[in-house]
Amino acid sequence: MRDVAVIGVGITKFGELWEKSLRDIFVESALKAIDDCGVKKIDSMYIGNFSGGLFVGQEHLGSLLADYLGCTPIPATRVESACASGALAFKQAFIDVASGYSDIVLAGGVEKMTDVDTGEATYGLAAAADREYEAFQGVTFPGLYALIARRHMYEYGTTREQLAKVAVKNHKNGARNPHAQFPFEVSLDQVLNSTLVADPLRLLDCSPISDGAASVIICPADRAKEFTDKPVKIIGVGQATDTITLASRDDITTLKATVEAGKRAYEMAGIKPEDIDLAEVHDCFTIAEICAMEDLGFVKKGEGGKAVEEGLTEIDGKIPINPSGGLKSKGHPVGATGIAQVVEVVTQLRGEAGERQVKNAKIGLTHNLGGSGGSVVVHILEVM
Amino acid sequence: MRDVAVIGVGITKFGELWEKSLRDIFVESALKAIDDCGVKKIDSMYIGNFSGGLFVGQEHLGSLLADYLGCTPIPATRVESACASGALAFKQAFIDVASGYSDIVLAGGVEKMTDVDTGEATYGLAAAADREYEAFQGVTFPGLYALIARRHMYEYGTTREQLAKVAVKNHKNGARNPHAQFPFEVSLDQVLNSTLVADPLRLLDCSPISDGAASVIICPADRAKEFTDKPVKIIGVGQATDTITLASRDDITTLKATVEAGKRAYEMAGIKPEDIDLAEVHDCFTIAEICAMEDLGFVKKGEGGKAVEEGLTEIDGKIPINPSGGLKSKGHPVGATGIAQVVEVVTQLRGEAGERQVKNAKIGLTHNLGGSGGSVVVHILEVM
Repeated sequence: MRDVAVIGVGITKFGELWEKSLRDIFVESALKAIDDCGVKKIDSMYIGNFSGGLFVGQEHLGSLLADYLGCTPIPATRVESACASGALAFKQAFIDVASGYSDIVLAGGVEKMTDVDTGEATYGLAAAADREYEAFQGVTFPGLYALIARRHMYEYGTTREQLAKVAVKNHKNGARNPHAQFPFEVSLDQVLNSTLVADPLRLLDCSPISDGAASVIICPADRAKEFTDKPVKIIGVGQATDTITLASRDDITTLKATVEAGKRAYEMAGIKPEDIDLAEVHDCFTIAEICAMEDLGFVKKGEGGKAVEEGLTEIDGKIPINPSGGLKSKGHPVGATGIAQVVEVVTQLRGEAGERQVKNAKIGLTHNLGGSGGSVVVHILEVM
Repeated sequence: MRDVAVIGVGITKFGELWEKSLRDIFVESALKAIDDCGVKKIDSMYIGNFSGGLFVGQEHLGSLLADYLGCTPIPATRVESACASGALAFKQAFIDVASGYSDIVLAGGVEKMTDVDTGEATYGLAAAADREYEAFQGVTFPGLYALIARRHMYEYGTTREQLAKVAVKNHKNGARNPHAQFPFEVSLDQVLNSTLVADPLRLLDCSPISDGAASVIICPADRAKEFTDKPVKIIGVGQATDTITLASRDDITTLKATVEAGKRAYEMAGIKPEDIDLAEVHDCFTIAEICAMEDLGFVKKGEGGKAVEEGLTEIDGKIPINPSGGLKSKGHPVGATGIAQVVEVVTQLRGEAGERQVKNAKIGLTHNLGGSGGSVVVHILEVM
């Protein structure tokens, strides 16, 4: 397999983008990524999208988006793995280049979720759970993550305040990210007193419903310097699955797919969790960030809440997590999230993250999760 | 890139499988493919599925199907490219093995379309067209292919009878396929007098709405003999896109994505159209088979209708097309179709196709098309 590097990145503003359609925002992000590295020709495209079908009545995004980007007849492939669709597009693009089948490949992610009402969006999102054994019985994602949170509190003494501090920290970071949907700070009191959604999770524990798109361009590492002075190498790639239903798992506080995908990525990169300088992890709910920190090995099992409380995950902490603001503050256009994480890590490793820059960042990790942990994709990137 | 071979195949009965769910039929096909070659362990899975979201309210099929097949935590990736989703899963599986990232990979395709009523199925299928510029304006696929048919008749003198003969030939073949949804013959008169759907296309020019699943297992070619006496090598892989709307094309009788994907596959295989012993092509409507024959170079442009009339595409003809019965008689569970085509070609190349066996078949081609030709995937397989 060939070494592969990221040479260009592009991202739209995340938010309620009612004046733009799915195709518009994808093309906007793709053109930014193309401008960023100046490639003249793309060999192939991968698009991460969760449910164009349920959110905008549109599938067949490979053809649609290659068409609107003006690059037919190149191969264009849409991949889906619930909220991990973006990272999966990045992984498939990586394999395409690593194999030698293609050279210059665009990996994009896009979701347009606000063209339907909240009820329809909730129905759509529940397609990432087991429709027959979870959604049809009335449990949607806030409920599933509330179960994880309650059990984590019971097993490890994680507190309601520790959960809230994840949101406070991520909003602090997101306030420094011009692409964030909610670029403002929130106080501990605001989180603790926000509307109860699914006990113990409150409104400000939950990532929002969002529109947005992100794109990156990759190529063989030995050609990267043709296009950029600051290439970033993909050194670790890991993907794993777990049971789709939470009820089928032995222990709902450990997301096995995160553990397994992380293990594969660390092994491929030949590094350990302590070598990571920053991580973008999948904080769809505040509890999810705590589980991810533990399952990726940044802290011991059960010590995630304490680590947040002690400030270890702040931008200037021992292991900065979600400097972008995470899904919580930056927004969570489902299919775009995994690519947006890569955009943030590349921006950080290039030293271009401005007010939210992590100092001396050389190695970064992305963790993108689908459903309640039924699938996870982890990538590790390093300055070349 | 490593050479890659197909070692196992499995397929369900196609039809209205009301007593089984999407997960059931996928697992049935996967277990058959596993039994067929006796692999003990799968490294990775790719699932082709068009719209689990719109047809059964279920996305996140990678996790769901890995779970139900009992093979978590392996990576499982769902890919979508409208009616070409199955072949795209096969292509991604090929790249995964060719790259050296994985060894034993399952590529499956599945669609469950009869759990919704015909109106909902039509709405779902229209998600493969451009929702904004085609479906919302009232044109669905029978209408789009009717435009292609009418123009083909105008440009090349293709006759109504020639279209009908595609259906007659495919039903003749499908009557010899135990997995076919409609395993019976139809007469020329029956086709010509069936209900008018979209002039000039009649009911018996159209492939049906179907449930079904198919799976194949691939591995590095140099390991294939560990698992089977009759491995089949993947020698050509081509994928291409075109504009998603028919209205954007210069010439609607030539499907450029077929021409381009075919060209790429032939180049990779180092062969020409005349070297192909049999082909499974995407006959979603009778006119589509005629276009495919021409665009893949089996006959000159405009001579497809005549070739059918002269019997060149019969099982004992010069270039046997759709010995399985094609989408027309075998059925068209959208995401499964591309894999089902591979199952048929492998079965033929192994000499195991019984009454529908093409004599001395050494090289076979599959042609899987999405939408009205917005995406196409072509594979060429050869006896090892």
